[in-house]
Order: sequence, then C-alpha cells, then structure tokens
Amino acid sequence: MPMNRQILLDNRPVAEATESNFRLVTTPTPDLQEGEVLVRHHYLSLDPYMRGRMNEGKSYAQPQPLGQVMIGGTVGEVVESRHPRYQSGDRVVGMGGWQEFSVVKADALGAIRKVDTTHVPLSHYLGAVGMPGVTAWYGLVKIIEPKAGETVTVSAASGAVGSAYGALAKARGCRVVGIAGGQDKCDYVVKALGFDACIDYKQHADAASLSKALKQACPNGIDGHFENVGGMVLDAVMLRTNAFARIAVCGMIAGYDGKPLPMTAPALILVNRIKVQGFIVSEHMEVWPEALQELGQLVGSGRFRPRETIEQGLENAPKAFLGLLKGKNFGKQLVKI
Amino acid sequence: MPMNRQILLDNRPVAEATESNFRLVTTPTPDLQEGEVLVRHHYLSLDPYMRGRMNEGKSYAQPQPLGQVMIGGTVGEVVESRHPRYQSGDRVVGMGGWQEFSVVKADALGAIRKVDTTHVPLSHYLGAVGMPGVTAWYGLVKIIEPKAGETVTVSAASGAVGSAYGALAKARGCRVVGIAGGQDKCDYVVKALGFDACIDYKQHADAASLSKALKQACPNGIDGHFENVGGMVLDAVMLRTNAFARIAVCGMIAGYDGKPLPMTAPALILVNRIKVQGFIVSEHMEVWPEALQELGQLVGSGRFRPRETIEQGLENAPKAFLGLLKGKNFGKQLVKI
Repeated sequence: MPMNRQILLDNRPVAEATESNFRLVTTPTPDLQEGEVLVRHHYLSLDPYMRGRMNEGKSYAQPQPLGQVMIGGTVGEVVESRHPRYQSGDRVVGMGGWQEFSVVKADALGAIRKVDTTHVPLSHYLGAVGMPGVTAWYGLVKIIEPKAGETVTVSAASGAVGSAYGALAKARGCRVVGIAGGQDKCDYVVKALGFDACIDYKQHADAASLSKALKQACPNGIDGHFENVGGMVLDAVMLRTNAFARIAVCGMIAGYDGKPLPMTAPALILVNRIKVQGFIVSEHMEVWPEALQELGQLVGSGRFRPRETIEQGLENAPKAFLGLLKGKNFGKQLVKI
Repeated sequence: MPMNRQILLDNRPVAEATESNFRLVTTPTPDLQEGEVLVRHHYLSLDPYMRGRMNEGKSYAQPQPLGQVMIGGTVGEVVESRHPRYQSGDRVVGMGGWQEFSVVKADALGAIRKVDTTHVPLSHYLGAVGMPGVTAWYGLVKIIEPKAGETVTVSAASGAVGSAYGALAKARGCRVVGIAGGQDKCDYVVKALGFDACIDYKQHADAASLSKALKQACPNGIDGHFENVGGMVLDAVMLRTNAFARIAVCGMIAGYDGKPLPMTAPALILVNRIKVQGFIVSEHMEVWPEALQELGQLVGSGRFRPRETIEQGLENAPKAFLGLLKGKNFGKQLVKI
C-alpha cells in the first residue's frame, strides 16, 4: 500500500489561525477491508467552515479532533476497490480530508459518490457543482425565495458560493449585486460572472458609507441577501432592505477569531419585517439532487464558468487556507495533490 | 353635537418622550354625514408601538402627524348613527384615537366592528381579544410554530401580549417561561397566568447572568422566543437557543429613544440555525378571525383571565403612556374615558 502524506490539526488557534496549528506526517495506508475502496485525491477543497472546526467551543459541528487528519472535501480516482460497485479509475467525490489517499467504506451514507466528467471538470464537483454550489442554491431558493425582478445581494461575491449564487439568481430574473474586496474581484464579478453590479467594501470605512454605495447599486432596495461574512457588510445591507426582505446567513467569517461582531441595528428586523435565517447545507441533503442538477446544467452549458484558485501540493494547504480566510483567493480555493 | 376633548401630538421627542410632547384641546364634534357614526369611547388602549409613531424617522408605519389626535385603539358605544347597520347602543371596537368621541365612516375597511360583550368584557377587545392577543397568536402560531413539549419564552411576559402568548402556548402543550421586570410581575406570571417559570431580568446585570437563569428555567433549551424588548434579554435568550429555534420579533422597546441597541452575537443565528423574523400584526388581517376566535374562547371559558391596569380620565393618558414605556403597568394598559 502507498505511503500517505497527511495534514493533522496539531493544536488550536489562540486567536488568528497560523501555519503552526498544522502538522504534516507520512503514514502507510492500511490494507483494504471488504467493502472499502482506496481513493487517490486529485484536489482538496478549502472552505471557510474549516476555521470554525478548529476551535474547541460549541458550534454547529463537532470540533476537529486534535492529532487527526483535517476534515475536507476531495475529488479523486479509485485506485483499488473491494466493493462491487467501484472499480479502479472511477472518478469520485467525497470527504477524504487533507491527505493524498483515503480509505473509504463505500456504502457509508454520504461517504463517496461517482461523478461524470464528460461535461463538468472533476474539480468543479468541489465548487460550483458541489457543496458551495448547493449552499448558494439552498440559501437563494429555500430561504430567499426570490421573484423575478427582485434585487438580491451577496457578500464574498467572487468566491465559490457567491459566484454560484449570482448564476442562480440571474437564471431567475433577479437583479444581482455583489459585494467583494478589491477592484479586480469586483471587475471579475461583473464582467466574467455577469452580476449587475459589484461594490468593493474595502473602499468604505463604515457601514454608512457602504450603505450609500448599495443605495446606488440597488435603486429599488434589497429584497434578498446571502451573508457569507457578517459585520459591517451585513449592517450596511440591512439599512437598504425592503419590507419583507429575507437574509440567508451562511457565514460569519469575520467572527471566527473570537472578536466580537455585533449586529448594529437589529431593530431593522422589526422595522422592515425581515426574516434572518441561518442554515447549514449538510442538514438539507434532500435538496442536493435538484440543486446539483441545475448547477451541472449551468456549468455544462457554459452559462456559468466558475473560476478556481489552485495551490500546488498538499504541503501548501495550510498557507492556502489562511489566505482564503483573508480573501486572497479568487473563486473556489483548491489544492492540487 | 357634544364637545370632544382630544390629545394631540404637539412636538416630537428629542430623546425620551415626555408629557410636554402632548397637548389637550377641546373641539366640537362635526355633524354626521351619511354613512357615518358617532362613537363615545369607553376605553383607550395604550401600546408600545405608539412610541415609534412619535418619531419622524422611517419606520414601518407613517409617523404620527403633528397637531393631530394621537392614534390608538378604542372601544365604546355608538351614540348616533347615519349608517343602516349601526344603531345607538351598539358596542364597537375601532381606532378612535386619544379622544372622547370619534366620527367614523362605518364602511371603511377596518374602521369599526361590533363586538359581543355577553361573555367577554368590552375592555378585553383592546387586549386579550384584540390587537395584543392577535399579535401573540401570530408570532406563536405563524412564526414560532411550536410543537407540544417544546420550550418557548417571551419577554414582557406580564404585559397584554405576553400574557396572551402564555395562554396560547400552554394550550399547545409547551413549557412556557416568561421574562419580566420585578418579583411581583414574575409572581403574577407564574401564579395567575400559569407560566411554568418567570425570570426577573432586573436581578441580572448582564446577558451572561440572565442566560444562566434561563438555563435553569429551560433545562431543555429554548425552541421558540417572542421578543417584545430587545437588547440584553434577546442576547441572553439567543445564548440558550436550541438548533432550529425560531424568534418572532415584535418589539424593540428599549431602542425607541434612539439609543444604539446592538445584537451582541449574531453569529448564533448561524451556529444554531435560528430563524429571526420581524412582523406587524396589522399586515396579517387574514389571521384575525381565527386568532380572535381562539382568544375569545380562552377568555370566555375562564382559562385565561387577563389583567388590566386602568388609568382614569383622558387627561392622564400621556402620563400612563410614559409609565407603560417604563414597564409600570401590569397587564394591558387602558385609559377609562
């Protein structure tokens, strides 16, 4: 069996996460038992939720155990199989973690599934046609429930979730306005992803200033918003909501380091009769088939061309992950293994 | 036609509302036109929403115009009618405002309706079997949607909305825990209203302390919450929410004076996948018949005995209203006219 390089969580962040929280080890892969397959990973997905798992405190998910392989989505190919439905060469998506190989009980619920790479490149099953895409779909379709002609917004618009959200909202006849950090990201969001407008939050010192820019970009107000960030962006969006606006809360990335991150004016929830709802896409597996079908069609037909930022080599995963948390990526952040 | 004493909004509050914001005048009532009725008010309802109307800023409702009679719910009797469906002596509920008489176009939508005082005292149509009762019903039934055995909480538990909420939640098999200000109110909430527990928020200096008390009173966590106040109480409740909790936001009384009132930890919306939703009961007239029927049965059968605080005389309405904003009332605050 091949030797397997793995990245473990070595210790928990005190405040900001650093590379020293991780440790690279090499171990042999165990022999396969009946029903198991050995998968060689091609790509590892890096996602903001992993930062939450690094903390010990109560969160929606169990903390990542110390000394174990970091959790993470992977795509790859089966290199050995002791399961009748899988054979060498099958392309699969799963939760293989930050390592080169994984041994998977193929019948375990949600462990792996085969994917078709005829029209959709393998790596997109970690992004636009994977968990981030379904996340955008759930927030937009099930919480925001937009009508054609409504204005919907999203923070971290150039990321994997934000870009899928834009494609899904345009397909529903909405005006879509992104919020992103930096002019190059905003240009990409408008020119490549087809958003109607994008606002660079880094040009704004406070929520009042950002809110003015949102007023210009959303002349009819905001009917739906997808929140990936929290803090100033959410405060600014709330100031521009229309009556009966819906806000899907998917991420609070600015708060992971333990800094307090209050909502400045929750009274707006009452004044504008807003619905604010948090969700985790893995708790809604019933929508995945429908969502993946729509996302696969958008990507396969070329109407949605998601961008990826690809780091080379497993050993660089921690650095790339810390960069993701600071918004250094452009579209979906992957590691080529 | 009789002379009519009226209380007008004379000027807007700078910060805290004061009696000097109001002015008492006496004017003759106009002659009735065809289709109008003259109503002599027996009781005026005082409600927290009126404070919001006193401000000029954008809110969900138009500001109360200066120099005009303060808006408000009233019950009374028809003393003269030029409408075929009404006659002298009819008991009616309407939005007559802070005055002794009102002239009403009886066919205008929502202007007045006749009420039956056989089993329900007239004044209760301003409280338990009126707008406050329906408010509690909407938040509980349509937003919180409780299941039997769940734990639900409410702030301002001894007030008109809170007490109706308790009766409705007990009728659905919930554990109901109130939050109120002062031991006498808490005793009333548990002993007279039948809540399972009530916490005196005045005994707690901060949200962390209040949250500990909530943990004791809600050993299985909080599944649904009805927010009448905002601020520290909401922060404390959010710390005790279970996954998929629902929070109906009906009031943010602590914020009306323009003080900032942040939500300390909105990340909990994501961590616990909470739904937080603001609403205004007057936008949901479709539920009123169903809600009033249930509330009327609870009161008529004696299972719910709402308490009232009654101020004597129209001229004392401003003083009673300012007291209401400070929580000096006990149950529904009325003015006997």
